[in-house]
Amino acid sequence: MRMVDVIEKKRDGKELTTEEIQFVVKGFTDGSIPDYQMSAFAMATYFKGMSDQERADLTMAMVHSGDTIDLSAIEGIKVDKHSTGGVGDTTTLVLAPLVAAVGVPVAKMSGRGLGHTGGTIDKLEAVPGFHVEIDNQEFIDYVNKNKVAVIGQSGNLTPADKKLYALRDVTATVNSIPLIASSIMSKKIAAGADAIVLDVKTGAGAFMKDLDEAKKLAKAMVDIGNNVGRRTMAVISDMSQPLGYAIGNALEIKEAIDTLRGKGPKDLEELCLVLGSYMVLLAEKASTLEEARGMLEEVIRSGAAIETLKTFLEAQGGDSSVVDNPEKMPQAKYVVELEAKEAGVVSEIVADSVGTAAMLLGAGRATKESEIDLAVGIVLRKKIGDKVEAGESLATIHSNQEDMVKVKEKLYESIKVVSGDVTVPPLVYDTISE
Amino acid sequence: MRMVDVIEKKRDGKELTTEEIQFVVKGFTDGSIPDYQMSAFAMATYFKGMSDQERADLTMAMVHSGDTIDLSAIEGIKVDKHSTGGVGDTTTLVLAPLVAAVGVPVAKMSGRGLGHTGGTIDKLEAVPGFHVEIDNQEFIDYVNKNKVAVIGQSGNLTPADKKLYALRDVTATVNSIPLIASSIMSKKIAAGADAIVLDVKTGAGAFMKDLDEAKKLAKAMVDIGNNVGRRTMAVISDMSQPLGYAIGNALEIKEAIDTLRGKGPKDLEELCLVLGSYMVLLAEKASTLEEARGMLEEVIRSGAAIETLKTFLEAQGGDSSVVDNPEKMPQAKYVVELEAKEAGVVSEIVADSVGTAAMLLGAGRATKESEIDLAVGIVLRKKIGDKVEAGESLATIHSNQEDMVKVKEKLYESIKVVSGDVTVPPLVYDTISE
Repeated sequence: MRMVDVIEKKRDGKELTTEEIQFVVKGFTDGSIPDYQMSAFAMATYFKGMSDQERADLTMAMVHSGDTIDLSAIEGIKVDKHSTGGVGDTTTLVLAPLVAAVGVPVAKMSGRGLGHTGGTIDKLEAVPGFHVEIDNQEFIDYVNKNKVAVIGQSGNLTPADKKLYALRDVTATVNSIPLIASSIMSKKIAAGADAIVLDVKTGAGAFMKDLDEAKKLAKAMVDIGNNVGRRTMAVISDMSQPLGYAIGNALEIKEAIDTLRGKGPKDLEELCLVLGSYMVLLAEKASTLEEARGMLEEVIRSGAAIETLKTFLEAQGGDSSVVDNPEKMPQAKYVVELEAKEAGVVSEIVADSVGTAAMLLGAGRATKESEIDLAVGIVLRKKIGDKVEAGESLATIHSNQEDMVKVKEKLYESIKVVSGDVTVPPLVYDTISE
Repeated sequence: MRMVDVIEKKRDGKELTTEEIQFVVKGFTDGSIPDYQMSAFAMATYFKGMSDQERADLTMAMVHSGDTIDLSAIEGIKVDKHSTGGVGDTTTLVLAPLVAAVGVPVAKMSGRGLGHTGGTIDKLEAVPGFHVEIDNQEFIDYVNKNKVAVIGQSGNLTPADKKLYALRDVTATVNSIPLIASSIMSKKIAAGADAIVLDVKTGAGAFMKDLDEAKKLAKAMVDIGNNVGRRTMAVISDMSQPLGYAIGNALEIKEAIDTLRGKGPKDLEELCLVLGSYMVLLAEKASTLEEARGMLEEVIRSGAAIETLKTFLEAQGGDSSVVDNPEKMPQAKYVVELEAKEAGVVSEIVADSVGTAAMLLGAGRATKESEIDLAVGIVLRKKIGDKVEAGESLATIHSNQEDMVKVKEKLYESIKVVSGDVTVPPLVYDTISE
């Protein structure tokens, strides 16, 4: 088999065989297929797409390009959740203890990553003593005992995907649905998921700005999962404004605690109930979505969810008293309000720009070497559709720098106040389950 | 400027600026733009094409990526001819002395190349003593004196094109009209042509199998030439069967001699008169095509064309007595006829396969290191539409190997004889001058 022939076949819109896709992924991973052929292949795929079968084949070839995690020692159906990313997305911190509290095993492998705030692990490290440096056996034991544990990424998972992603990033081939879908799904499958719930974000603050594109991506991933024997469902949710109020590491932990108590932002709570219901359903702990939702609402009401959070934090060395005393987490030196310049209704909160403001405060990483400030961030006081008086606070800034001129400038740019009616975007646009 | 942004712009079908195209070609040539970005760019170009201005910019950027030949010391308008290649294409050997005989300066830089037979230089070396190792001053002096000289390729012409072609070859991006057109035109312009006549072949034996594609390529090249101040015209000619009768090195020299005497194959003579008329017109030696054609017919009739050939060969060390005694050129040991198995009409002569048969005899190079046998080859006895009796010769095989089983097999496969009517393909399909 010659790579040039496979590129030509894809270029001409013909369907590749399983063997051809395996040849491409194997050769690219071991270096026998050079980058310059792979990038031409990626561009041909950008233009010609892939069939359901090709996407499933590509996903599984990437899964088998490296190590896979064996979670069979954990009882029950392991359901993983993946979000395509956004600003102030605290769902993982809420969902892990929430679904664990109803008996769904949550064996979460997580990373630090780059972005407006840290990754899940960074955020959890705002809890004094909490650490993810546990071995595989501890990880499995904790999940079996407490139904939830988080471990740092280890092993050589999906090296083909890592290499391909780096190449796509510099060859204008990131934005290809089959390539995005197989990249995400291969990582989830290699990490041991039996079933997967996807939260595909759409809107100005999301990777997929356009609803139709978000739906196509969700459909592609659901098809892949179901084709390779991993039950998969997707929710298309809004990211035209940040989810919840908090953007920052300790600030999001506090917001997650509030939400697990039933006192969090309504949009964050609702999305967690929607995604959590699908997780409970796929884990076969309930037979209908209604039943699943009822179970989740009950563990919030009863306090079982918050107790599960405490147990989880303690198991991994964390000081669980932060749950009742969040001020034990890192606190910013300066807390100031962003006052509205005029009265009106909030019409827009550009999620991306709010994220950039959080970055300016030091909440996230621009490069792998950046230090994160766990204390800082932004807590919105208003969301789209809320009325505001002149001088009223639009957001609270938590900063360790006295000079907040640039941050305020960025936030004023992001939060638009108008006179007249404003349409509030829906939280969930669609769900896709087959 | 970042290459990834330029790739994205091309991917999205937007027109690149002159500066962007210069950035791409310069960076690719000096290695600051890696192959994997260039191949993604080539694939995006394959799908999205290029505007007239982009093609002209790409051509000139490739011209300026290396040396250019200065032919200003040669009097008159230097008209170059380029053929997109085919089987048994003897036009250059005929045209060079033919148009020189009417005063058009022919300063030909030529190569050896790979293919069914050798390049123009290989063929000319079938004339004992002939050589192309002359210096630039001799080259210019010979053209000024005799109106025709041939020199081997020297200098670092269009390195960007060489590098890009090698990359396209392994990334399924050869077949892109803007890339083919700019590749050909950049080489002609760098070699010093003031005006260019293109012979774009179409049909089974040509690179462009499809007439519409051939027309598009011709139009793209004519547009480029005219956009960058080199008057350019194109003829679309047939390559569904080999041109003329001879396929081989010495055999084609003999055929060229016959044609310069007015005793060559009719199709070869006609195409040379058509192409030659455009060359004479572009060189401003005649004011109409009719006048130009009349001049060419006159130098054939008068013997001036054949005298020019002799002078040209002698100037470069060649034994011009071969013109009257072609048997002084290398002769094959075995000359056998390919007898028709049945009577009928020749319906097809697959040019590619006849070329392969010539390769099997040793007439061409498969790799740069291959040795060419100048004596061997094939002389067709019939062309499409000709009647043939059973046992009559379809072709004469000139071989230095006694065993011709495979060659005969290939030729029988190539030459189809049917009963009933046969449509003879036209020789010239179209001409494009603006």
